[in-house]
Amino acid sequence: MKKVVQSQLQFKVRYAETDAMGIAHHSNYVIWLEMGRVAFLEELGLPYSEVEKRGVYLVVTSVGVKYRRPAIFDDTLLLTTRLGSLKSRMMRFEYAIERASDNLLLAEGFTEHMATDFEKRTVPIPQYLRNLLEDS
Amino acid sequence: MKKVVQSQLQFKVRYAETDAMGIAHHSNYVIWLEMGRVAFLEELGLPYSEVEKRGVYLVVTSVGVKYRRPAIFDDTLLLTTRLGSLKSRMMRFEYAIERASDNLLLAEGFTEHMATDFEKRTVPIPQYLRNLLEDS
Amino acid sequence: MKKVVQSQLQFKVRYAETDAMGIAHHSNYVIWLEMGRVAFLEELGLPYSEVEKRGVYLVVTSVGVKYRRPAIFDDTLLLTTRLGSLKSRMMRFEYAIERASDNLLLAEGFTEHMATDFEKRTVPIPQYLRNLLEDS
Amino acid sequence: MKKVVQSQLQFKVRYAETDAMGIAHHSNYVIWLEMGRVAFLEELGLPYSEVEKRGVYLVVTSVGVKYRRPAIFDDTLLLTTRLGSLKSRMMRFEYAIERASDNLLLAEGFTEHMATDFEKRTVPIPQYLRNLLEDS
Repeated sequence: MKKVVQSQLQFKVRYAETDAMGIAHHSNYVIWLEMGRVAFLEELGLPYSEVEKRGVYLVVTSVGVKYRRPAIFDDTLLLTTRLGSLKSRMMRFEYAIERASDNLLLAEGFTEHMATDFEKRTVPIPQYLRNLLEDS
Repeated sequence: MKKVVQSQLQFKVRYAETDAMGIAHHSNYVIWLEMGRVAFLEELGLPYSEVEKRGVYLVVTSVGVKYRRPAIFDDTLLLTTRLGSLKSRMMRFEYAIERASDNLLLAEGFTEHMATDFEKRTVPIPQYLRNLLEDS
Repeated sequence: MKKVVQSQLQFKVRYAETDAMGIAHHSNYVIWLEMGRVAFLEELGLPYSEVEKRGVYLVVTSVGVKYRRPAIFDDTLLLTTRLGSLKSRMMRFEYAIERASDNLLLAEGFTEHMATDFEKRTVPIPQYLRNLLEDS
Repeated sequence: MKKVVQSQLQFKVRYAETDAMGIAHHSNYVIWLEMGRVAFLEELGLPYSEVEKRGVYLVVTSVGVKYRRPAIFDDTLLLTTRLGSLKSRMMRFEYAIERASDNLLLAEGFTEHMATDFEKRTVPIPQYLRNLLEDS
């Protein structure tokens, strides 16, 4: 049985992601978290594009990020994503972002999600996704 | 008869749009041009959301920007949009971005567009849009 | 004495801010909150660019957003920003985002900030800023 | 002698980069081109961060992109960057973006750059950079 306790993703800070303070703008972390859960689901064997093909959106209902240390242009970052909790109508992911060169913790975050159909009506988290996640 | 020779839009440079050079990152200008043509179409009486409701996307096929002078955080910019050319399957917009405080020209640009249906098949520029634009 | 209990800002959802779900991507809200506190400080008489000219960055240490309802392209949004708390080394802003047409609450959020010098060393929130905020 | 005729970079389309048409928003291509020349310079042995450490910005003076076919979420893209021309005060990069799965050409682009010092005064393209590029 596949066991995905957590997923890791490495990427570099883009120049376009920096701001006039000379650091990665804090809004980008929210985009990076999304990349983390996309990688998590892919590793689980269910790419997010496949979830949407089955008619479900995993809408973000809450996001939180704590910023410890800044990232700068061209830093290689190591993003760890793990499933925080899973209920019939809510799933939560938790994240840590480290600088790859020295594993300095730069930020921690979470996102919470509900599932909707394409008309944006709330639906339960699909069973095929729950099965995969509960095994993980 | 309505005459929209050109449309003008004012907005401020966001902090998130700056980069580590301390200026607005050049990619944002492409987003600003889009705001300009959205404002142009709205002023014409045909909001872009309405074009999509009628089943047509105005897809960007080409974009070009020449950068003359940098914009910095909180600068108020004045964006002028005008129709450059209009053919059965291509429309072109042209743009100028000035700093509002002294009308210094910061950048010039253009975009070219084709129309597609929702399956991304090319279709002629809709006649209702051409009528509006030819009167403009 | 100037009293800025809260500041309000109106703006439209850009097409570039939408995503494949057809709604404004959730990361943009973090950028919008920043626009809210920039407007708040300007209304207070101390533009953020002036804070930086005095040698201080107001670095984001924490952000949180709860998403209630989606925003779509071209929606006019009403963003309300108010000071949540103010300590010697931390300030907190709180935000609400409504759809302007019907005042439907779309999202709520907060940001927390510390002050740093240009070498990114933590410094107290500057007294001139505290004075303005405590009067507000 | 090091020969960098061209540099290649692979990356995936982020969900945050999609728009309400269900495709990657055209503004992101400008950010991707930047990633391409950053990778090009790194491969040349002179990371762009190093250029800035030596006191020079490579400012974008012109950008152009032609869009052939759309990219969608999670597509793996293959970005090829090559030096287009090099003069004492101007350098030009040229780019092609393909879909990695079938090498379908999605877009072509170019950027032109001048060098400035940190006060944004134009300076010649640094000799150490020209040497590297002329050997490439």
